[in-house]
Amino acid sequence: MKRTAKAHWAGTFQNGNGEMTTQSKTLNNTAYSFKTRVEEGAGTNPEELLAAAHAACFTMAISHGLSEAGHTPKDLNTEAILEFDLKTLSITGIHLEFSAAKIENIDAEKMKEIAEITKKNCIISKALSVPITLSVNYSD
Amino acid sequence: MKRTAKAHWAGTFQNGNGEMTTQSKTLNNTAYSFKTRVEEGAGTNPEELLAAAHAACFTMAISHGLSEAGHTPKDLNTEAILEFDLKTLSITGIHLEFSAAKIENIDAEKMKEIAEITKKNCIISKALSVPITLSVNYSD
Repeated sequence: MKRTAKAHWAGTFQNGNGEMTTQSKTLNNTAYSFKTRVEEGAGTNPEELLAAAHAACFTMAISHGLSEAGHTPKDLNTEAILEFDLKTLSITGIHLEFSAAKIENIDAEKMKEIAEITKKNCIISKALSVPITLSVNYSD
Repeated sequence: MKRTAKAHWAGTFQNGNGEMTTQSKTLNNTAYSFKTRVEEGAGTNPEELLAAAHAACFTMAISHGLSEAGHTPKDLNTEAILEFDLKTLSITGIHLEFSAAKIENIDAEKMKEIAEITKKNCIISKALSVPITLSVNYSD
């Protein structure tokens, strides 16, 4: 199936303005600019959207691993922290910080194992060429 | 600099529900689910967010190439069409469909050249491992 989004830009790289719209209209002429991209605390930008895609994909995917192991997860959380190098204008890596509330019969070792497999196999991970690291915060 | 997003998921892969929030709060507890991911016309999902990141990045980046060539672009448009293979659960490629209003002293060949360079060098392209294709709709 096709998943699409559109972007528009007018003006120069540093002083221009853009808008983007996703297929579902969740983003709908949503503004972005040089300022929202490289300044702290400004608006949206491609990098935080990639982080959102990755965090959402990983968190949903790990529920699959847990379901397959016979458990219904209740409270899974992931923060994706993307490192954006402004000097080289490149993404140097994404760190996934995963935490979960205790799930019966899943010990910390098993959770770590499922999380590592998910890190490799989740749909967004497989589409990326940058290094992905993972930390798991889970107690037996 | 760091660009971040958080995701939460509760329940199984197929019947659970998630929310995601970006650093800028442009997405703010925005819902996603199996249904919004694999059904036509439903809500947001990681794949359309990746498409948005790519379209936005490419469109902004090509303004850079045009500015460097001495021109201020006025009307640049890109649609990113991501191919999502549900059988293999993988992204098999992203097609960028670029179009621009006529810019003085930029002929179709020059535009194609700048677009091809941008396709390779834009920040999101560099972070991806999937094939990226490009079409340029621009008339002298």
